[in-house]
Amino acid sequence: MADEHPLSREDLAAALRGLSARYWDKHPFHVRLHAGGCSPDEVRAWVANRWYYQRRLSQKNAAIIANCPLAEVRRRWVERIAFQDGSGDGEGGLEDWLVLAEAVGLDPAEVRDERSVLPGVRFAVDGYVNFCRTRPWTEGAAAALTELFSPDLMAERIRAWQRHYDWIKPYGFAYFEHRIPVVQRDSEYTLSLVLEHCRSREQQDAALAALSFKCDVLRTILDTVDYAGLRR
Amino acid sequence: MADEHPLSREDLAAALRGLSARYWDKHPFHVRLHAGGCSPDEVRAWVANRWYYQRRLSQKNAAIIANCPLAEVRRRWVERIAFQDGSGDGEGGLEDWLVLAEAVGLDPAEVRDERSVLPGVRFAVDGYVNFCRTRPWTEGAAAALTELFSPDLMAERIRAWQRHYDWIKPYGFAYFEHRIPVVQRDSEYTLSLVLEHCRSREQQDAALAALSFKCDVLRTILDTVDYAGLRR
Repeated sequence: MADEHPLSREDLAAALRGLSARYWDKHPFHVRLHAGGCSPDEVRAWVANRWYYQRRLSQKNAAIIANCPLAEVRRRWVERIAFQDGSGDGEGGLEDWLVLAEAVGLDPAEVRDERSVLPGVRFAVDGYVNFCRTRPWTEGAAAALTELFSPDLMAERIRAWQRHYDWIKPYGFAYFEHRIPVVQRDSEYTLSLVLEHCRSREQQDAALAALSFKCDVLRTILDTVDYAGLRR
Repeated sequence: MADEHPLSREDLAAALRGLSARYWDKHPFHVRLHAGGCSPDEVRAWVANRWYYQRRLSQKNAAIIANCPLAEVRRRWVERIAFQDGSGDGEGGLEDWLVLAEAVGLDPAEVRDERSVLPGVRFAVDGYVNFCRTRPWTEGAAAALTELFSPDLMAERIRAWQRHYDWIKPYGFAYFEHRIPVVQRDSEYTLSLVLEHCRSREQQDAALAALSFKCDVLRTILDTVDYAGLRR
């Protein structure tokens, strides 16, 4: 593979965007979640388990920064930690997620202590953090490119949940509302970074593999939540 | 917890053995596998996915050795690597597993290249290796104590498969036949190690948590294989 020609910027961008076919919006659980077919317990299981993913994001982002020798990249990437962790108590993406938890009828204290997090979710998310710890920072950045696909999905989620799940309190959508504009900006920056720093075919293939791996992480979260529901 | 009294050797041994309730023999997929309810494709999926677990065992064992400062423990533990990897081409537990793969109708080359390994299985097994890399060696040893429960299960598997799956070629059972006497010896040694080196209540609780974690690893493998079958 190493002797193959590098892809042009346009072709690499197209190949990365083409991985949207592997994104978790097509997973049967997600399709059902947005079509109104989930029970309140299933929506709650999704929120409580995804907490573990949210909770590990800042550590994942710090791992990418730890591997990156470029100050100008670190300076931008650290903003993601600030977004998630907030600038004070009761602020930030993590707190917004606990507000969502409350809006779907969960006790935020129980979400925070992670008693409902399924082992399979833990393995997948820890695998993602470990990937970003042990691979070049460009691969960690490429793995973050599911952000190319997530703004549309989050916007659709707000509409779908409002239509199908009127028992969810409307203040719960704050996380998605805060996140959509940020993620749109982040993803364009991340794409430009990957296009700029993955020049050899080997690096480009590794970037594509990283984004594909990240889709496996997200889909495994849904596999796990779905399977636990089937066995209840 | 740290100020609680340590358990006696007998009580710790009993608590460790009591975790058999969390062992994967009670998992619905395993129950079905031994009751004759699995299709050939399901048996093959189990064999091909468990290959990934087998394949990582020597690395897991080396990680435990790497963390252990005691030569007399390392000297014994390294035997596990020899068992799995063999002393020459065509020998050892890994080769025996490929023989099993062939006996259930899989192409050993396809098992070896891991194309059928599901992401959820990879995350769980990698999580186990990573656990043994990053925790004290005594916790890695305690996690291996599923070996207390496995000889009975392997013996039962040979009987159950011979009864229910006459299409499996009989030479395929070599792995289990070779493994049963070794694992019986290993598990008694491992138990004595854990009882000897986990003296504080904190270490004892960590040993129990490690064995519980290991049960999560094994059960997640089955969750993943079962869910993939349900969706086919």
